[in-house]
Amino acid sequence: MVQLTPNSSFSLTLRLRIPNQAGMLAKVTQAIAEAGGNLGQLDLIERSRQSVIRDISVDAASTEHAEEIANAIRQLKDHNIEVLDVRDRTFNLHQGGKIHVEGKIPLRNQEELAMAYTPGVGRICNAIAEKPDRVYSLTIKGNTVAIVTDGSAVLGLGNLGPEGALPVMEGKAMLFKAFAGLDAFPICLNTQDTDEIVETVKRIAPVFGGVNLEDISAPRCFEIEARLARELDIPVFHDDQHGTAIVSLAALFNALKLVKKPLDSIKLVINGAGAAGVAIARLLKKAGANTIVMCDSKGIISSDRTNLTPEKQAFAVETGGSLADAMQGADVFLGVSVPGVVTPEMIKTMAVDPIVFAMANPIPEIQPEQVAGLVAVMATGRSDYPNQINNVLAFPGILRGALDCRAQAITTTMYLEAANAIASLVSPNDLSPEHIIPSVFDPRVAPAVASAVQQAARNSGVARH
Amino acid sequence: MVQLTPNSSFSLTLRLRIPNQAGMLAKVTQAIAEAGGNLGQLDLIERSRQSVIRDISVDAASTEHAEEIANAIRQLKDHNIEVLDVRDRTFNLHQGGKIHVEGKIPLRNQEELAMAYTPGVGRICNAIAEKPDRVYSLTIKGNTVAIVTDGSAVLGLGNLGPEGALPVMEGKAMLFKAFAGLDAFPICLNTQDTDEIVETVKRIAPVFGGVNLEDISAPRCFEIEARLARELDIPVFHDDQHGTAIVSLAALFNALKLVKKPLDSIKLVINGAGAAGVAIARLLKKAGANTIVMCDSKGIISSDRTNLTPEKQAFAVETGGSLADAMQGADVFLGVSVPGVVTPEMIKTMAVDPIVFAMANPIPEIQPEQVAGLVAVMATGRSDYPNQINNVLAFPGILRGALDCRAQAITTTMYLEAANAIASLVSPNDLSPEHIIPSVFDPRVAPAVASAVQQAARNSGVARH
Repeated sequence: MVQLTPNSSFSLTLRLRIPNQAGMLAKVTQAIAEAGGNLGQLDLIERSRQSVIRDISVDAASTEHAEEIANAIRQLKDHNIEVLDVRDRTFNLHQGGKIHVEGKIPLRNQEELAMAYTPGVGRICNAIAEKPDRVYSLTIKGNTVAIVTDGSAVLGLGNLGPEGALPVMEGKAMLFKAFAGLDAFPICLNTQDTDEIVETVKRIAPVFGGVNLEDISAPRCFEIEARLARELDIPVFHDDQHGTAIVSLAALFNALKLVKKPLDSIKLVINGAGAAGVAIARLLKKAGANTIVMCDSKGIISSDRTNLTPEKQAFAVETGGSLADAMQGADVFLGVSVPGVVTPEMIKTMAVDPIVFAMANPIPEIQPEQVAGLVAVMATGRSDYPNQINNVLAFPGILRGALDCRAQAITTTMYLEAANAIASLVSPNDLSPEHIIPSVFDPRVAPAVASAVQQAARNSGVARH
Repeated sequence: MVQLTPNSSFSLTLRLRIPNQAGMLAKVTQAIAEAGGNLGQLDLIERSRQSVIRDISVDAASTEHAEEIANAIRQLKDHNIEVLDVRDRTFNLHQGGKIHVEGKIPLRNQEELAMAYTPGVGRICNAIAEKPDRVYSLTIKGNTVAIVTDGSAVLGLGNLGPEGALPVMEGKAMLFKAFAGLDAFPICLNTQDTDEIVETVKRIAPVFGGVNLEDISAPRCFEIEARLARELDIPVFHDDQHGTAIVSLAALFNALKLVKKPLDSIKLVINGAGAAGVAIARLLKKAGANTIVMCDSKGIISSDRTNLTPEKQAFAVETGGSLADAMQGADVFLGVSVPGVVTPEMIKTMAVDPIVFAMANPIPEIQPEQVAGLVAVMATGRSDYPNQINNVLAFPGILRGALDCRAQAITTTMYLEAANAIASLVSPNDLSPEHIIPSVFDPRVAPAVASAVQQAARNSGVARH
């Protein structure tokens, strides 16, 4: 039922030698189209009288699909079309990793060496030892974030361990730089023990102005974040929880404007009670929501169930039941669970003008095509549908703002203000069911979030600068 | 007695407004010269009919001296010479820290985002989880070094703590990049407990292809290095020990050629039994030296002394005495101790053609001026005298070589081969008492060291690649 469209994450570059005759390139593009591939960039590499060498980028829907496309082109050898090379663009891009560390100034002669390193650097070391606060101005600390993971919950892929998590952390570091100018570095821990993680992060904290926790599984992530926030004097942010919660809330603020329903009087269903689900529930409550029904893989989280974690218990309702039961009469569905668990029939039992955020990644709880005409507003985590709920809208600005004001901590008020800032970037004129949230590439987002976060930090007395 | 010459580590930039008349700039340069400052760059910032604004760089010998120079210029106000700004160039250069983290590819659109981050990155994570060795090709690990310190022995300055050590570690990261293309990141630990340091480095190891230990005090550094080397499968290098030992040995190889003495039959005195002293003694022994007398602040390390660490005990000789006693009849003096502890009288009691490496930083055990005519070869740690013994000649190439062949460990043979490689870069024609070691900026050094280290790793079976 669930079929991915071709996209750049399964993208190939085919290097082909094609006879230099009219109609030959058309044979290639036709074969790609027939195999279901999406044609991207066409680069001319070399041209002679006899032949042309071209690099052709093609998006596929899966690894197998990519192989099928390559094979379809290989079939064209009867037309003297030759496949010289097939490269997986995503793997290519990851060769050698995605970030690097650079000096800010050159080291070309003794003079530069003597200022940046010994003996000159000794003066800076002494200055910091005398007045520890100077570490913020005389070192990288004030602009540097640790991206900490134990690899226990990598994307939706599960417990891949610290090495398997590293490509995500490198990507996150790229995003911190590209969207907020922050220097972030991956710390992938060779332990999944809560005490050891807390201890280790505390020990490496001197270099960092803030900590972004990432891909640590629930419920350990709750305790790790709470303890680090208490025991460190730098901001600690678990993106899987609060990034998702902030952006969901921002989108919900705008969706509710469209259906003219107030947050405090509607019924919301959250499916998924991991890091993101719990954080969304907590932030919604703080924002004024009164009726929240939370579901996990066993259905509605109700007080008659046993073995509930404290986080789930806090949201347990009286009456149990299935997800389908929960959705009856609901105004809003928020999914942070698994692909395909919601059916159009379930949507039809919701209240008038239902809002559906199906945010499971990469495949949503229900595909937008299936709810056309049934919902007032639909959002997913995907970039190929309207209304992408993407953490990138939140985390760069949150940490930018927190570091700029040297926040000692991050408060829920800072999250709420960040959500308001993101929502407010969609002007009333632009607001529509297909546009409730700004684009990830809207350059106003990170500065607006950073500014809102700083303001909230000042108001709540956690700003030190 | 010991007086530093002006150098760039105490360098000022004075911004001056000077009347646009002949002879006015001369007044400034004369005042600087009279105050003992060394004139550097003169930049023209702005010129009008009435006046010229210039930035003038001046090296001083100390902070106080810099202040005296600035005051001398302020005295020129009667000539309408106005001091607009006085900047400390070293502090200026350290503002905001000295390194940054950059993405290798841009993130400008959904396609790039989908390949570098979700969903494309998930394919890379899975590929690594399936075959862990891929972490070397698909992430930063294979080119990345952790620079680990606890801040307990920062340069010669003492226990400044992790924040006080950070500027040195940033400088080291710059050097790794500039001299060997390695990406290095500072890990400054908020603990000085041996077990905790070992534990923490092991926990953060997944991201790193190698570990450079730095500025950790003796004797803890010996145990920390030994345990990490045993318990990690990536190379671990304590630069304060082995960097110094390798470069000293390289210089000694060449110095001995000049005086035509064989290493195995000469008497060597090492003053200083910290990290560097012990490592030098160990490497000299491995290289074939038979007669080593080691001294610490209490004099000769002899077996009748109590409370010796195991490292010192290994080099204890039968008869005790003072440093002066040790130096009688010695062929080589190697100092890694404190300024000014060696006198010309002590040098005069050494064997014929004595070799003196006075490597205390920033001020040597004896100044080269004091031994003119008394020694065959003199070296220091300073860049303003001939024969600078500088770790920069070793550590970038050592880790470059070790990472390139994915060495599981670093062996003493690798150190010896590195020393040989450095020594061999001074050709017989160029070898002279004032040139026993290549320049820090000789671009052949790091590749030569890396290549020798790789070869030695292959020969000793620790190379995995």
